[in-house]
Amino acid sequence: MNIEKNIENLKYDAHGLVPAIVQDDATGTVLMLAYMNRESLAKTLETGVTWFYSRSRKRLWQKGETSGHVQKVKDIYYDCDADALLIKVEQTGVACHEGTFSCFSRRLAGEKSAAAQHSDPSGILLDLYQVI
Amino acid sequence: MNIEKNIENLKYDAHGLVPAIVQDDATGTVLMLAYMNRESLAKTLETGVTWFYSRSRKRLWQKGETSGHVQKVKDIYYDCDADALLIKVEQTGVACHEGTFSCFSRRLAGEKSAAAQHSDPSGILLDLYQVI
Repeated sequence: MNIEKNIENLKYDAHGLVPAIVQDDATGTVLMLAYMNRESLAKTLETGVTWFYSRSRKRLWQKGETSGHVQKVKDIYYDCDADALLIKVEQTGVACHEGTFSCFSRRLAGEKSAAAQHSDPSGILLDLYQVI
Repeated sequence: MNIEKNIENLKYDAHGLVPAIVQDDATGTVLMLAYMNRESLAKTLETGVTWFYSRSRKRLWQKGETSGHVQKVKDIYYDCDADALLIKVEQTGVACHEGTFSCFSRRLAGEKSAAAQHSDPSGILLDLYQVI
């Protein structure tokens, strides 16, 4: 395994970015999806905490740089197409700026009742959608 | 919760796509990252199994349509920016066309020794990278 070579061999999009799924290593909770370029990936590897590229602010940012909610990197995987990353982290505090542990706290549809903010108490919305 | 409204309110990119993280509901394993447009998301909700949009083939595809490795949808979440989906599924067989349960079987760097194909037996590559 050659880390430098793997970074170069990733398939970045037209903007030089690759999507990075961030997962809490201890619980398996998917925390967020953000984007990395070569520079932010290198900085992540150098510092051991996550750095991303903000598409809106057009600059690198360290997760938790203002909130203190940094993510310590435990493992980094890439997928079979080499165009997506999975970063397993130890999350300090919460991942979402809205105060929830995961940024994925809103349910679009599902079978189960959820602890999420917009929960489906009946737990049958997906079934219902398939009927209507 | 209004599913139709939520589908419309998602922030699709310039190509009308939104990235979808697929996670095994039972184990928490992140299986793959793929892309959905409104049509594939609607088809996913209608059928209860995952449909994506292939950027290379420029058409909808049902996961497992040839392999039989379909993904039964258990829950769908979207994130705080409404520009990414998290789909929890019951995976039939394996998710990856290479035969591994997850498409994320290759390690770029990490602390732990892994069961992944390209493992780091010494388990110190990330530390090593930070030193060099």
